[in-house]
Amino acid sequence: MEGFSLELSDQPESLEQILVDCRDTLKYGVRTGHPRFFNQLSTGLDIVGLAGEWLTSTANTNMFTYEIAPVFVLMEQLTLKKMREIVGWPDGEGDGIFSPGGAISNMYSVMVARYKFFPEVKTKGMTAAPRLILFTSEHSHYSLKKASAALGFGTENLILLNTDERFSLYLTCMSGYVPMFVNATAGTTVYGAFDPINEIADICEKYNMWLHVDGAWGGSLLMSRKHRHKLHGVERANSVTWNPHKMMGVPLQCSAILVRERGLLQGCNSMCAGYLFQPDKQYDVTYDTGDKAIQCGRHVDIFKFWLMWRAKGTVGFEQHIDKCLDLSMYLYNKIKNRGGFELVFNGEPQHTNVCFWYIPPKLRSLPDGKERRERLHKVAPKIKALMMESGTTMVGYQPQGDKVNFFRMVISNPAATRSDIDFLIEEIERLGHDL
Amino acid sequence: MEGFSLELSDQPESLEQILVDCRDTLKYGVRTGHPRFFNQLSTGLDIVGLAGEWLTSTANTNMFTYEIAPVFVLMEQLTLKKMREIVGWPDGEGDGIFSPGGAISNMYSVMVARYKFFPEVKTKGMTAAPRLILFTSEHSHYSLKKASAALGFGTENLILLNTDERFSLYLTCMSGYVPMFVNATAGTTVYGAFDPINEIADICEKYNMWLHVDGAWGGSLLMSRKHRHKLHGVERANSVTWNPHKMMGVPLQCSAILVRERGLLQGCNSMCAGYLFQPDKQYDVTYDTGDKAIQCGRHVDIFKFWLMWRAKGTVGFEQHIDKCLDLSMYLYNKIKNRGGFELVFNGEPQHTNVCFWYIPPKLRSLPDGKERRERLHKVAPKIKALMMESGTTMVGYQPQGDKVNFFRMVISNPAATRSDIDFLIEEIERLGHDL
Repeated sequence: MEGFSLELSDQPESLEQILVDCRDTLKYGVRTGHPRFFNQLSTGLDIVGLAGEWLTSTANTNMFTYEIAPVFVLMEQLTLKKMREIVGWPDGEGDGIFSPGGAISNMYSVMVARYKFFPEVKTKGMTAAPRLILFTSEHSHYSLKKASAALGFGTENLILLNTDERFSLYLTCMSGYVPMFVNATAGTTVYGAFDPINEIADICEKYNMWLHVDGAWGGSLLMSRKHRHKLHGVERANSVTWNPHKMMGVPLQCSAILVRERGLLQGCNSMCAGYLFQPDKQYDVTYDTGDKAIQCGRHVDIFKFWLMWRAKGTVGFEQHIDKCLDLSMYLYNKIKNRGGFELVFNGEPQHTNVCFWYIPPKLRSLPDGKERRERLHKVAPKIKALMMESGTTMVGYQPQGDKVNFFRMVISNPAATRSDIDFLIEEIERLGHDL
Repeated sequence: MEGFSLELSDQPESLEQILVDCRDTLKYGVRTGHPRFFNQLSTGLDIVGLAGEWLTSTANTNMFTYEIAPVFVLMEQLTLKKMREIVGWPDGEGDGIFSPGGAISNMYSVMVARYKFFPEVKTKGMTAAPRLILFTSEHSHYSLKKASAALGFGTENLILLNTDERFSLYLTCMSGYVPMFVNATAGTTVYGAFDPINEIADICEKYNMWLHVDGAWGGSLLMSRKHRHKLHGVERANSVTWNPHKMMGVPLQCSAILVRERGLLQGCNSMCAGYLFQPDKQYDVTYDTGDKAIQCGRHVDIFKFWLMWRAKGTVGFEQHIDKCLDLSMYLYNKIKNRGGFELVFNGEPQHTNVCFWYIPPKLRSLPDGKERRERLHKVAPKIKALMMESGTTMVGYQPQGDKVNFFRMVISNPAATRSDIDFLIEEIERLGHDL
């Protein structure tokens, strides 16, 4: 706030000042496209995707009706169908929509499930339904909690499971409750783990529950012949979240919710606003997608993705994904037996997530116990603070359950190389050595 | 779909083909920035806003944490404060967030109101609250219905009011129900009407209800000294929706929800995800805005708006708004007494909306009745279809209540001039003359 005035005034600034503002904004920003930015699941800067976004903002239109976004609406329709084919639904049948992010896509899945089983909730509210229970794994994304709170289920009615055993137990002793929805995560946010979709699908079929697969992070692995087996059973899901803006490097925002049964999105959300969705238009009004959405205006998120797909082909995405997963194996192998590094899990990474502690020399001789834990908890935040001060690289950390703060490495930038991984390791050692 | 293949293939297309794709996308698109595009509330293409959006996509970052979007987070904070000052809250106190559009902003208002009065709904669900009633006017935006359905209130519990009288009636005979929320619209979508905020605020105070002002369309009039009186009383609202992407010409998407009481957005939506919102960061973590949102990742919508404000100043927005409202008066005066045109309302437009029928010569001598109504109902869709075929201009139409299809003119593009208005009138006459 010191060298850069952000004030908004009554009078206009000069054009020179506007250019200075632009330069300063980039100067003080964080370079999320840099190959050493590992802080988020969305990294990198694809040049075709960027061109697509520039064209999109130039077109400055809205996805709600075909009449003002004919090309984009057709692209969305075609791309969603292609994604459903890749999920494995016969002939790519089903429905879907691009939403402003994975959290909203997951929210759609809960809404559509509720509409499928209790359509009267739309008009009468949650009091028209019995007490509904949602399930998800304890490592799933917090957007499921946000959806439970927002949609009127209540977070207490979202059960966080840790094993299949507890799952069955819950289902057998829930008299008075109706189990409605299960979220299986394909690629958890912190560990990059994949829930066993087929096993969960068996339980969902038995108890007549909606199966949603949150593939916001891991869904893209469906594009890789080598890695798609990790989502085995995904074709049994009723809905799937898949964010091309994460592992596929599409510029933010680009998230899709795919729904196997056609008509539910429309049924759930439609309000038939007369000023937008006139039935007497001169074209087939089923091309108007707006009434499927909880939004009215909807940003065009499809074009950059479609253009990248044209430019890379499916094989290009596959290569990108395989390369990132190879890099995470390289990181895993490199720190597995390296002094001062300790993996949170010993198994090979399923996604590009590699979670580990860095143990500074002074802590290495301490016995496991309260003091070591407390001191180790402070190491990752301190190293990260030093990283940000020196501006060399950026990686996330967090505690999880009974585990003290550890680093979470994720790789989604196709520009990242082995030397960037080497750099990260050495930088952590450099900054953390004397802690 | 004929001259333009949209297919996605396994193999990449050539760079030449990608450029052809871009050209075709623009060629078959609709020119929403053209001064004769009157079809939506969002029109025009501001060059500074566009530059802002291009820089935003180049930065490709995410609003959820300060650590990866420090400049944008500060800009958002400062801009929201400025907007709250303009609303009239003392010292710009309060809270707010930019959301993916007015529908989501309105949804936030209902969520925050519910959290204020019944915070236990967050954890226990709607069954923990009494039967809650929401009010809005019958001409309000359909997103209120969408929110009622999505959040678990049920659309039947959203009462659509037509007069204040009915409002009081409802409030006195609702035993067993709890009236919780009233939406007053500042600038209705079709008529551009302004609800009497002060009168509604009196009732809200009396019955302890949340007052939301949906100023998605009309909120921008607060920037105009000449027109802001139409929102008299807005400072008494508990929350306000205001979409700079409509009347202020900011590129899509740019919508803000402003909340008078600080802490509610956070309380309502926070889930404290450990991997994003670590409490032990090296900066003041109240700058992390992500847990206020129902989203996780959040697109940077602020920069283009902030940059436009810098470039135009508040007075620039005021001039833009005043000019558009002047133009709508010009249109109103022009068709008021013109043969073949009939206004839906006789009063002067409050916003830029001017609603009217065009009566082709053959219908002018018909007596008012079923036949005339049926034939008139088909006129606007037919003229619009012809407009779109000739590609000359574009304007919306709809029926409303017992009124058959009429045109709704709206002006928000600063590039529009009197000659564009003249053109529209003549074009409607040219295309509709023989119907």
